[in-house]
Amino acid sequence: MDLVTANSLSYEDFVETFGNVVEKCPMVAAAVWSDRPFVSVTELDDAIGRFIDALPESGKEGILRCHPDLAGRDLQGGRLTRESQEEQAGAGMDRLDATEVSRMSQLNQEYKRRFGFPFVICARMNDKATILLRLTERLKNEPHEERALGIQEVKKICRLRLHSLLPADTLNKL
Amino acid sequence: MDLVTANSLSYEDFVETFGNVVEKCPMVAAAVWSDRPFVSVTELDDAIGRFIDALPESGKEGILRCHPDLAGRDLQGGRLTRESQEEQAGAGMDRLDATEVSRMSQLNQEYKRRFGFPFVICARMNDKATILLRLTERLKNEPHEERALGIQEVKKICRLRLHSLLPADTLNKL
Repeated sequence: MDLVTANSLSYEDFVETFGNVVEKCPMVAAAVWSDRPFVSVTELDDAIGRFIDALPESGKEGILRCHPDLAGRDLQGGRLTRESQEEQAGAGMDRLDATEVSRMSQLNQEYKRRFGFPFVICARMNDKATILLRLTERLKNEPHEERALGIQEVKKICRLRLHSLLPADTLNKL
Repeated sequence: MDLVTANSLSYEDFVETFGNVVEKCPMVAAAVWSDRPFVSVTELDDAIGRFIDALPESGKEGILRCHPDLAGRDLQGGRLTRESQEEQAGAGMDRLDATEVSRMSQLNQEYKRRFGFPFVICARMNDKATILLRLTERLKNEPHEERALGIQEVKKICRLRLHSLLPADTLNKL
């Protein structure tokens, strides 16, 4: 799709197309539809970022809680969204050996127990080794730091998903 | 389920259970999970209401835009959520004759063109006749009135869905 087409969509088709740029939160795309027309992917991306920033803290935690664990039960059970499936597979999360699955599971549980939301990281910008490293490091952070870092990662994921959906408008702009 | 069990759920299971009390907006249930334990269904319902009220106006419009048309393309195409399917069927929306389908479609289109979000009404509190009547009447409202009325209906739908999910805690309290 290109941005001219995206700007011309009904809210229904817009949400159908962009509804999962923030994982399982179609409300976000549905909200920023009001801001059309967007003159660039960056402007659309910025509108989403501003919307997320304007949410109460509980809403930001709500967004984080809509994300699946990395190498978690949704991956094992084939219940990931198409986007998450591709991103986790790209980072090798679907090819961990038993020891690595067990290690990820243990760290994910520890993280969720400590923070009350899942560890979120942009899988397309990381690989198995850096994901494990960052998860281990970030476990030591304070809750407010992790909420902020998690939301930063949500925005990175969103940006890459937008660029995948609007490839022509992304050319030479990354 | 009962409220004691609901209060004991992980956020994952809580969102799995209550994620669609606001149509296609699991972020809402995910956000209020932080407010556990709830001493009554009303308290859970109030927490959701407060969360929605605290959203920016674009977020409220976003919630409305996550709702399907009544007797619309998602019903015809079998793509409604389970809850919406039951509610629309209960109000007879799946048994309209061709003339009624055409009339609803025309009014829905007019409403969406005027307001930029769909006509939302609690189908379980209405029947075919009152839905058509209210849709015709509400078309005359101002946008800010309709946004507020639509959100009131979202809350009624949410309340009834919560009561369906927590039947024992609802007894004698409606």
